[in-house]
Amino acid sequence: MLPSKLLSSLQAVFPTDRLYIDPVDCYTYAYDNSRKIYPPDAVIFPLTSAEIQTAILLCNQHNIPLIPRGRGTGTAGGSLPELGGIALSLERMLNIITVDPANRVIVAEPGVTNQSIQDAAKPHGFFWPPDPSSAMYCSLGGNIATSAGGPHAVKYGTTRDHVLGLKAVTGAGDIIKTGCYTTKGVVGYDLTRLLIGSEGTLAVITEATLKLTSLPDAIAGITAHYRDIASCAAAIVKIMSLSQIPSALEFMDAGSLALIRGRFPNMLPAHSRAMLMIEVDGSSYDIPNLITTVMDACHTDGLLQVENTRDTAHLWKTRKALSPLLRDIAPKKINEDIVVPINSLPELLDGLTQLSDRYQLANVNFGHAGNGNIHVNLLINPDDPGEVSRAEECLNEIFDLTIKLKGTLSGEHGIGSEKRAYINKEIDPVTLNLMKQIKRLFDPNNILNPGKLFP
Amino acid sequence: MLPSKLLSSLQAVFPTDRLYIDPVDCYTYAYDNSRKIYPPDAVIFPLTSAEIQTAILLCNQHNIPLIPRGRGTGTAGGSLPELGGIALSLERMLNIITVDPANRVIVAEPGVTNQSIQDAAKPHGFFWPPDPSSAMYCSLGGNIATSAGGPHAVKYGTTRDHVLGLKAVTGAGDIIKTGCYTTKGVVGYDLTRLLIGSEGTLAVITEATLKLTSLPDAIAGITAHYRDIASCAAAIVKIMSLSQIPSALEFMDAGSLALIRGRFPNMLPAHSRAMLMIEVDGSSYDIPNLITTVMDACHTDGLLQVENTRDTAHLWKTRKALSPLLRDIAPKKINEDIVVPINSLPELLDGLTQLSDRYQLANVNFGHAGNGNIHVNLLINPDDPGEVSRAEECLNEIFDLTIKLKGTLSGEHGIGSEKRAYINKEIDPVTLNLMKQIKRLFDPNNILNPGKLFP
Repeated sequence: MLPSKLLSSLQAVFPTDRLYIDPVDCYTYAYDNSRKIYPPDAVIFPLTSAEIQTAILLCNQHNIPLIPRGRGTGTAGGSLPELGGIALSLERMLNIITVDPANRVIVAEPGVTNQSIQDAAKPHGFFWPPDPSSAMYCSLGGNIATSAGGPHAVKYGTTRDHVLGLKAVTGAGDIIKTGCYTTKGVVGYDLTRLLIGSEGTLAVITEATLKLTSLPDAIAGITAHYRDIASCAAAIVKIMSLSQIPSALEFMDAGSLALIRGRFPNMLPAHSRAMLMIEVDGSSYDIPNLITTVMDACHTDGLLQVENTRDTAHLWKTRKALSPLLRDIAPKKINEDIVVPINSLPELLDGLTQLSDRYQLANVNFGHAGNGNIHVNLLINPDDPGEVSRAEECLNEIFDLTIKLKGTLSGEHGIGSEKRAYINKEIDPVTLNLMKQIKRLFDPNNILNPGKLFP
Repeated sequence: MLPSKLLSSLQAVFPTDRLYIDPVDCYTYAYDNSRKIYPPDAVIFPLTSAEIQTAILLCNQHNIPLIPRGRGTGTAGGSLPELGGIALSLERMLNIITVDPANRVIVAEPGVTNQSIQDAAKPHGFFWPPDPSSAMYCSLGGNIATSAGGPHAVKYGTTRDHVLGLKAVTGAGDIIKTGCYTTKGVVGYDLTRLLIGSEGTLAVITEATLKLTSLPDAIAGITAHYRDIASCAAAIVKIMSLSQIPSALEFMDAGSLALIRGRFPNMLPAHSRAMLMIEVDGSSYDIPNLITTVMDACHTDGLLQVENTRDTAHLWKTRKALSPLLRDIAPKKINEDIVVPINSLPELLDGLTQLSDRYQLANVNFGHAGNGNIHVNLLINPDDPGEVSRAEECLNEIFDLTIKLKGTLSGEHGIGSEKRAYINKEIDPVTLNLMKQIKRLFDPNNILNPGKLFP
């Protein structure tokens, strides 16, 4: 329960349709795609930086957690109100403030969906490269909070490569402006990128200046099927050693293909045990050569078939169906997004097979192979304590293997609450302590998304 | 003079050939390309993180400034020992630790020159995109400290886009490790980019993991001459609205062309008052079309001639000769590297002409027009107090104009000591105060490059 004085102060600022206190209303803001549930004591829907600042100052006064959230599509639990408090939903800050095609810039508020940004950019021949699977629904603020990636990150990079500047309110209630409006700028410390990926623990982002990229003239798709995972992994390494990087290089293992076969029975070759979905883009002059080069690189011992497909939309529909299909068969999957250097992918994929065998766990792996970013899905029955405990041990070994291969625990989902117990595996105590001090500097009373990111 | 106890502690760690205390020896480390001179009391040449940590801890104990420096090519005074103290030269940390072409990574120490990185990358078909004019000589550590750019930043971005991770020793003496070895990673705060561009005020970088980029298959050059600056500026806007961005788009005004004519008498058309040097790169399939498209975009009212030149090396030699030529005629030039949005370049260039007329100052402008990044050179006689004072007023107005056009005070040189008096024009007091607190966090006793960056 919130202190009555805090509640009345909030009511003085937020009209009733922008301040939920009924537990039924609040429940919708209790969860994200981690599927854990922690109802907040209230939900506010600010429209301006000033309102956010007021809310932050009040929460500081009363020592109440404030949990910023976009559209709740995160998988790492970053927006869960674990300690109660107030959920700060940015979903009504929906203004696209500037569309400036001459300078390849869009300025927008955090509640704008990724898709709306794309829709605003497209008529001018541009796109904004971050493209998580949830792009139709997820918001800019959430994309920035996690440095969201997606399949095209292999060529275009992640969110941190496509933001020029930010406005934000820190946990101390300071309104700050970071970065610039131009494609170059080195004035002062790079607070823009310090906030990108900070998962709402340092500041609430209220406005972002986005750098747009030209839409490619032409796009083509290639699919390749392999009789085993090792020959597929070898092909990934070959493709990524080409001078022109594909615009997407997605990998699906036998478990993933089984799921797709369940939904689209005649789509895949019967003997395929691993598949690559590849996209190349560029000028129309360049595409034929690119297709040939990539198709050549697909040839390894275990290649079953490789083909050039014109229908890239269908390709992506299949790929995007995977996550929901996984939910159908295992609502409590453990979903991780580890990354290893490309050259270590064969060893990682082999290791994952061995680990799921040893721990007798169903494991479905797919992901952004071009970045070495594999989504590991341990499908568990949460009511089977033996399985849950085996999964925990297995996960621990997966993370150890990842670090041993010079990898990282998360490529795009972030740490949130799901991975904080493991962050020590990757970040040494001295560096982690410095990060904690930065947290304290931005948010001295620890009211902004408390408990997240750190162990 | 250094405290004798500090000196003897340093002597216990650094042999005489890696610790200079003779003022004659120290003098070489008194200046950079800002041409100001502040001799340090000593120079140390560490070889390891541990030695750097020891030096930092000693300077903390004795409250003595420690000024990290690469090769002293910075123009903003970032490596000047303004308050005396110890210059920490990283020029002997010269190891390229890893060349990993399969993962497109090089790991190197800060003293390695930019050119050595390129030489190590090239046999594998890669390059590292940052390419300041001083690339042959300047060091990786300095490139990172300023987020160095160069002509190819228009297509490839600056240093902050090409570093995956760092090792560093903070001003408090903590050895930290930031970022990762992979192209994706969102574990913890982005300390990598917080350090990039921080001009040696937060930490001393001891190792960097660099992301390499494939060398283009083909490169072509285009030159275009204009009868006036306005028609040239209009062409820049047209070129930058093309979907495929050129790999370089360099601008030179009438003053720059006069300098080049002095050195290469028959090189330029007689009536040219503004010139573009353009480079396009890509696959060989793509280049002919790219050349045609860019040459078409060069056509504005004042175009005198446009031609496709095969000799891009000669193009760059001419462009790179400009800075030294300027030194010859005006050793005390005031050199700034402002940036404005592309669309505002015509207004900026017009404003610069008006301002140099009004203040009766010789002003030579050239630079990376594709980023809106113009190097403004006010050529002054330092012995003429009237001219010096007019130049100060003019500079103030140039910065005001830049900010009015939504620009930034520095695209790649940084703030150092030269621009700190102006940083308030761009960064509001609240945000600047937060940056100062970050400085205090990393360097509580203010021993690391004290006085730089902040007003």
